Amino acid sequence: MKKLWGGRFTKSAEEWVDEFGASISFDQELVLEDIDGSIAHVAMLSETGILTLEEAEKIKAGLLILKEKAEKEELEFSVKLEDIHLNLESQLTELIGPVGGKLHTGRSRNDQVATDMHLYLRKQVQSIISLLEELQGALLEKAEANIETIMPGYTHLQRAQPISFAHHLMAYFWMFERDKARYKENLSRVNVSPLGAGALAGTTFPIDRYKTAELLEFGSIYENSMDAVSDRDFILEFLSTSSILMMHLSRFSEEIILWSSQEFKFIELDDSFSTGSSIMPQKKNPDMAELIRGKTGRVYGNLMGLLTVLKGLPLAYNKDMQEDKEGMFDTVKTVVGSLKIFAGMVQTMKVQTDTMEQATKNDFSNATELADYLSDKGMPFREAHEVVGKLVLHCVQKQCFLADLPLEELQAASTLFEGDIYEVLNPRTAVQRRNSAGGTGFLQVEQAIQKAKKCLEPLVKA
Amino acid sequence: MKKLWGGRFTKSAEEWVDEFGASISFDQELVLEDIDGSIAHVAMLSETGILTLEEAEKIKAGLLILKEKAEKEELEFSVKLEDIHLNLESQLTELIGPVGGKLHTGRSRNDQVATDMHLYLRKQVQSIISLLEELQGALLEKAEANIETIMPGYTHLQRAQPISFAHHLMAYFWMFERDKARYKENLSRVNVSPLGAGALAGTTFPIDRYKTAELLEFGSIYENSMDAVSDRDFILEFLSTSSILMMHLSRFSEEIILWSSQEFKFIELDDSFSTGSSIMPQKKNPDMAELIRGKTGRVYGNLMGLLTVLKGLPLAYNKDMQEDKEGMFDTVKTVVGSLKIFAGMVQTMKVQTDTMEQATKNDFSNATELADYLSDKGMPFREAHEVVGKLVLHCVQKQCFLADLPLEELQAASTLFEGDIYEVLNPRTAVQRRNSAGGTGFLQVEQAIQKAKKCLEPLVKA
Amino acid sequence: MKKLWGGRFTKSAEEWVDEFGASISFDQELVLEDIDGSIAHVAMLSETGILTLEEAEKIKAGLLILKEKAEKEELEFSVKLEDIHLNLESQLTELIGPVGGKLHTGRSRNDQVATDMHLYLRKQVQSIISLLEELQGALLEKAEANIETIMPGYTHLQRAQPISFAHHLMAYFWMFERDKARYKENLSRVNVSPLGAGALAGTTFPIDRYKTAELLEFGSIYENSMDAVSDRDFILEFLSTSSILMMHLSRFSEEIILWSSQEFKFIELDDSFSTGSSIMPQKKNPDMAELIRGKTGRVYGNLMGLLTVLKGLPLAYNKDMQEDKEGMFDTVKTVVGSLKIFAGMVQTMKVQTDTMEQATKNDFSNATELADYLSDKGMPFREAHEVVGKLVLHCVQKQCFLADLPLEELQAASTLFEGDIYEVLNPRTAVQRRNSAGGTGFLQVEQAIQKAKKCLEPLVKA
Amino acid sequence: MKKLWGGRFTKSAEEWVDEFGASISFDQELVLEDIDGSIAHVAMLSETGILTLEEAEKIKAGLLILKEKAEKEELEFSVKLEDIHLNLESQLTELIGPVGGKLHTGRSRNDQVATDMHLYLRKQVQSIISLLEELQGALLEKAEANIETIMPGYTHLQRAQPISFAHHLMAYFWMFERDKARYKENLSRVNVSPLGAGALAGTTFPIDRYKTAELLEFGSIYENSMDAVSDRDFILEFLSTSSILMMHLSRFSEEIILWSSQEFKFIELDDSFSTGSSIMPQKKNPDMAELIRGKTGRVYGNLMGLLTVLKGLPLAYNKDMQEDKEGMFDTVKTVVGSLKIFAGMVQTMKVQTDTMEQATKNDFSNATELADYLSDKGMPFREAHEVVGKLVLHCVQKQCFLADLPLEELQAASTLFEGDIYEVLNPRTAVQRRNSAGGTGFLQVEQAIQKAKKCLEPLVKA
Repeated sequence: MKKLWGGRFTKSAEEWVDEFGASISFDQELVLEDIDGSIAHVAMLSETGILTLEEAEKIKAGLLILKEKAEKEELEFSVKLEDIHLNLESQLTELIGPVGGKLHTGRSRNDQVATDMHLYLRKQVQSIISLLEELQGALLEKAEANIETIMPGYTHLQRAQPISFAHHLMAYFWMFERDKARYKENLSRVNVSPLGAGALAGTTFPIDRYKTAELLEFGSIYENSMDAVSDRDFILEFLSTSSILMMHLSRFSEEIILWSSQEFKFIELDDSFSTGSSIMPQKKNPDMAELIRGKTGRVYGNLMGLLTVLKGLPLAYNKDMQEDKEGMFDTVKTVVGSLKIFAGMVQTMKVQTDTMEQATKNDFSNATELADYLSDKGMPFREAHEVVGKLVLHCVQKQCFLADLPLEELQAASTLFEGDIYEVLNPRTAVQRRNSAGGTGFLQVEQAIQKAKKCLEPLVKA
Repeated sequence: MKKLWGGRFTKSAEEWVDEFGASISFDQELVLEDIDGSIAHVAMLSETGILTLEEAEKIKAGLLILKEKAEKEELEFSVKLEDIHLNLESQLTELIGPVGGKLHTGRSRNDQVATDMHLYLRKQVQSIISLLEELQGALLEKAEANIETIMPGYTHLQRAQPISFAHHLMAYFWMFERDKARYKENLSRVNVSPLGAGALAGTTFPIDRYKTAELLEFGSIYENSMDAVSDRDFILEFLSTSSILMMHLSRFSEEIILWSSQEFKFIELDDSFSTGSSIMPQKKNPDMAELIRGKTGRVYGNLMGLLTVLKGLPLAYNKDMQEDKEGMFDTVKTVVGSLKIFAGMVQTMKVQTDTMEQATKNDFSNATELADYLSDKGMPFREAHEVVGKLVLHCVQKQCFLADLPLEELQAASTLFEGDIYEVLNPRTAVQRRNSAGGTGFLQVEQAIQKAKKCLEPLVKA
Repeated sequence: MKKLWGGRFTKSAEEWVDEFGASISFDQELVLEDIDGSIAHVAMLSETGILTLEEAEKIKAGLLILKEKAEKEELEFSVKLEDIHLNLESQLTELIGPVGGKLHTGRSRNDQVATDMHLYLRKQVQSIISLLEELQGALLEKAEANIETIMPGYTHLQRAQPISFAHHLMAYFWMFERDKARYKENLSRVNVSPLGAGALAGTTFPIDRYKTAELLEFGSIYENSMDAVSDRDFILEFLSTSSILMMHLSRFSEEIILWSSQEFKFIELDDSFSTGSSIMPQKKNPDMAELIRGKTGRVYGNLMGLLTVLKGLPLAYNKDMQEDKEGMFDTVKTVVGSLKIFAGMVQTMKVQTDTMEQATKNDFSNATELADYLSDKGMPFREAHEVVGKLVLHCVQKQCFLADLPLEELQAASTLFEGDIYEVLNPRTAVQRRNSAGGTGFLQVEQAIQKAKKCLEPLVKA
Repeated sequence: MKKLWGGRFTKSAEEWVDEFGASISFDQELVLEDIDGSIAHVAMLSETGILTLEEAEKIKAGLLILKEKAEKEELEFSVKLEDIHLNLESQLTELIGPVGGKLHTGRSRNDQVATDMHLYLRKQVQSIISLLEELQGALLEKAEANIETIMPGYTHLQRAQPISFAHHLMAYFWMFERDKARYKENLSRVNVSPLGAGALAGTTFPIDRYKTAELLEFGSIYENSMDAVSDRDFILEFLSTSSILMMHLSRFSEEIILWSSQEFKFIELDDSFSTGSSIMPQKKNPDMAELIRGKTGRVYGNLMGLLTVLKGLPLAYNKDMQEDKEGMFDTVKTVVGSLKIFAGMVQTMKVQTDTMEQATKNDFSNATELADYLSDKGMPFREAHEVVGKLVLHCVQKQCFLADLPLEELQAASTLFEGDIYEVLNPRTAVQRRNSAGGTGFLQVEQAIQKAKKCLEPLVKA
């Protein structure tokens, strides 16, 4: 076999295989969780009498030394020892002697690694929830300052009806609120202890799984040992929740990119969040928004990757499941980074209120107002549409806008028109009048902002 | 342009475009939801005085006629009228005259279609939750009858430790319990009313969104009109929750396929769930399990499809979003079908208890018992492993199993061995002794089944 | 088991299972291919003496009758007969008696369905290649008419350098040229005959696989019978090639949507390819472009779906593989429709040349020209950039553009500037001067169009 | 803004943004390609007189120093300099002074990075093709030694017909042959030069793109500058080709895992490719096969990730496209590692020929032989099936196999049976007689192996 690769490669087959199979290059990310899990495990072993107090104290002392080193990033890991668990156990035994070998009593790497993952993800999801709140806070602040800033509202990227810029921003607030809810629900399944499930079947030692769960602050324990070691739902949920979040950010990014273009000019990004070109100082590329839009792909890919890994796997643990980690770590890093950037980008972006408002005036996006006006006066809706359609065509031929038509021309189209129609055609009025619940009317937006603030309150206190 | 396709195609460009853009071929699935939404809308229009009572009554009467026809599948739809909304409105106007045109007051197709989707998915998710419970019920029944049926437990598809077959089945029970929890959480965001959000900005009519929400039994309303018409999170959640469920079913399918093979022979599927070959009557292909394993791909694909559609879309409605429906319908059909089949397949499968038990005896999967025995008597775990390792090698050379070794040979390896070791080596004892919480010990499994029954109780009552 | 679903469902378990497992609802799409395959098979059975001439003639006559009916869409299929193969065989036997049963000699459904799929996809891919050429033709025509139409070229959706509109269009020409190449390569693996591979192992009958391959105009035969029945690479290739094509169309769609917006106004779509709103006649939604952009998701999803299905399947045929069809049919339909629509949309769109050209003048996208000018006169590139950077800032402060600066102000920045600089700053000149191979210079674009025409020639002849 | 993250994070916003946007952490993988591209570029700048010979010599000398350092991994990179291009340019200028700034004349980072990617992937794909041939070589060797090793052939994981083990292995040979063909086709589009396309529009400098293409041994150049900088098809093709390859490996892995189980026992993996358990020496987990099966998910995910990134991006370069690299690097690493491991695993695995053959005898997988026998003697195929069906049932009742039935019992079922039937029922005979082209008959397998060798020959010579 060595001959096979001999000509081309410098490593032996064994080295290749070892390196290919080892997870230490990435699972060292779990070093602190692994130690914390062991500390809880050994405390329980002692309480239940499986280890003597003395043995347990020795092991715990060794673990605390390793933890301190880990925090200082002073631990060194070896590929030969395959993974974080064997690396740590080996270092522990070096430190405290053969008693270190007793740490693994009533435990298996299968439940150990699952415990690490649950602890890790719990911490990360909590942190992501906080970052989501910071972004929501930035949105609220920007929205509150722009309740009466009006802009065109779009459907099909065509101007449809004028809206409040705050209203537009607040649409994202509620998306993030749903994201938060999903992460919290995810947390309820992340925060479950697999520790004590053993290799797959539980253990013959009289362990106390509730004790370790309590020490590690888990909310509950897995009810079935085979499920405990083979479940990766909690990671899939995390990845799908993150995919939806990234989708939201990609939509927001797209809008920031559009708004920053010379064609729209609705906002100006702060220099920190855009890169110039050395020769075109006018050029401020919305790099961060583009990059985050792009990173959506990576998170979708991580989700698809793990779904594929798990498809069709028999119970209980299979080596395929080692592939659960890198996509999770990468997603955490991507989501955390994207949220931080976004909060800063929103907070610092300059709103070009004049350009926005001007854009609402040079088109026919107030055509709906006319139709509603007629409909309000009793004309069936579909008929009103037709009347307005003709008026718009009339304007196009005359090269003017609806508000430019004299009253008699309006009345020629329908006698229902009266002098108050010009106020109705004003985009600002149009926005103000859409006062249905959740609508863009300034009053509604103001109320929505107050309601939204309450969503953040509990955390602000904490 | 007509020339362009002229040579090859019989339809005109316009027809092609119409057909390509129309959604009626699939959105007719929403016909009842669309009518129900309209009935609620018109009731509200009347209560708020936007329409007169008479107008509203006329419209409602027309809608009820359409509903009756729809239930009898007597309605006919036209591609020229593009979608279910315009088709129904056209038929309504035909029935009751121009007053039908007033139905659309204060509403837009954007909030209308969103309402239909929410109503549709609410019904389907509720039905899926019931089907999940039926499958759980079938599992419970089969588990309860097999608490003391023992079989090899596998990791890496290698025999690891003997387990209770009930314990193995119950691992799936808890997976489905999580699936149920996710669908219920999904439901909380499905059950939100977008009705009244208008095209994107709300409406100038004094509508009452809480009223329509109440009439349609929605739990709450969207707080932001732009979010209401452009949100498809609730479908993504449904697709990702369904992907995880299908992943579970694919794992279970894989095991059923393995167990049905001539190599395992652990179960025999009922004839209804397997297909024979006309020439090989002994051949019972586990077709249903294979097909469901395969259909996992379809659901993953639907999830990936919609995630792609939504990536980078600016607010609010874009035509791309018409692509949200077929994948959802297909997923509903797939999940509903798979759950029904699975429940029947589990309920009717015959368990070959003897073959299973026999398999636990012809290997070394009781090696862990020896190690635990020594460890229990004070030998450090890692040392115990080593002792047992040597004993297994000894057996391999002697071509016997561990239980075949005479006591003196065991004691030669460690003086800690005593006569009670043979009981420990019995696979049945090994199962029984794994009595840690959530373990495979018969007592634990019995308790787990009782606990599990409580998860189903509320529904049984209802 | 019947009890299980009894309460809720009207069908029996058997019906459910039959319907769930049957493929006739979609594989009837293969009816003509299945008959053609059978005609070739029976001809070979006769030539090799496996069937008598008389038997073969009888069977062939029956098949021709079925074919005629199929073409008139007069055949009726039954779910009870599961798939297209059994449906046709049953109808054949009804027509010609028990001799129909001899058709299946030396053949299995496994190689039969594979043959059908290869025949089907061959026809479809050929048709897609033709449609790609039509779209390329429309692009060429539009490009040829717009060689000297200038517009801003974008990076990061920021104006970067002025370009020829024809150059922009031609970028898509070359993408489609690659798509064509990929489809042709795909065809080389589609056009391979699996017929005669039997269930998985070949057959004991003295069949002639080369003969059937020749009759069906396949280019070659599968070398290995197990590979022949379990290979679905050719469909995966088709799906991934189609995914890349749809990605191209999604990019083009995005640009068409941007260009059609009131902010850009670079093009106007023909009414056939955009939908208006009943109340906003000015609103021409680029629906077709949006829909095609959205349909990208569906094709990605189909690719991901089949990749998932095939992952980890043991040889040879497994029922999972029945899931290969619907995604393929759906992708064919989507790609064919999208290409047709696109060709017409490009051919009929109106280019707003004035708006485009105007856009090149109101910004600093000619800044690169200045830097190149200085660099050309010997100043190191990075230094030149710096000089230009300062000049742009100077302009921003003066609220003018580069071409507005008097010569003395330019010379104050660098003495290398001379009177010819104003010509260099003209966007039209800037385009013209980018005459490097493949660049936007008019001459280059003209040449590229001539070269491109040659890519289409062979087909034009045929 | 600093306030925003102040409480929690130690880095300033600027640092975060820089780090988030920088690509140097991963694009340093391209260091050698970037230098090689620059060497070719400067040679061309000199030949075309854009730079003086002296300037070019200086730059080239500096680049060679950097290259040497890069090869020794002595270069250090800075996140502040964002990417590999700016890092190298900065180090070059440090080395040789301001003339270094002239290197970038007539080039942009957009065409530069594209060039790097093409060079990188060309090298990697070539290496992957070689590794595929090594794996094919290992298969051929193993197949050649096992032409007459017989085993059950499976469909639906049920024993179907006996086959030659070599035939089974050779099915994979042809899959890999298709993979090779796809990588070669991919290569034809990887091996195209984008250099000289500039930022998007070409350049005003009289560069010679054919010259740089020649120096870098590219087969052709991009015909359109905008396409050159925004095309990532070649990476998508690589990812989809690799996804199909990994799918093949996942199927092979699944079989290796099955065959290694105690239920099948068809092969024994070499110790190097399986891991034991410290307590269960009999347990040889097929870790490598499991891991590779799992890594399929990662490659699928990378494909889906990049497809998502590119969906809907307008021309030309967008920052999103920076996301094209990590998935490509990861896929290269995964595919290279998997192929190496697989070749060794196949080469060293021990085939349990006796167990395999034994398995062909204890079932009814020779039932097809009976049917073929009758059919061969003139009985219509469907009728023959029925006769055999009854015989099998008869055996099941008698608890024997077909070959155990005395001739009279066979003749009672059909008078066509004669004494030669027992030879026909022998599994070995059954294999031998499936001598149709590409079938499992020993003669066919032998010929297929000879044919297959020719696919490798050219490379063996080289």
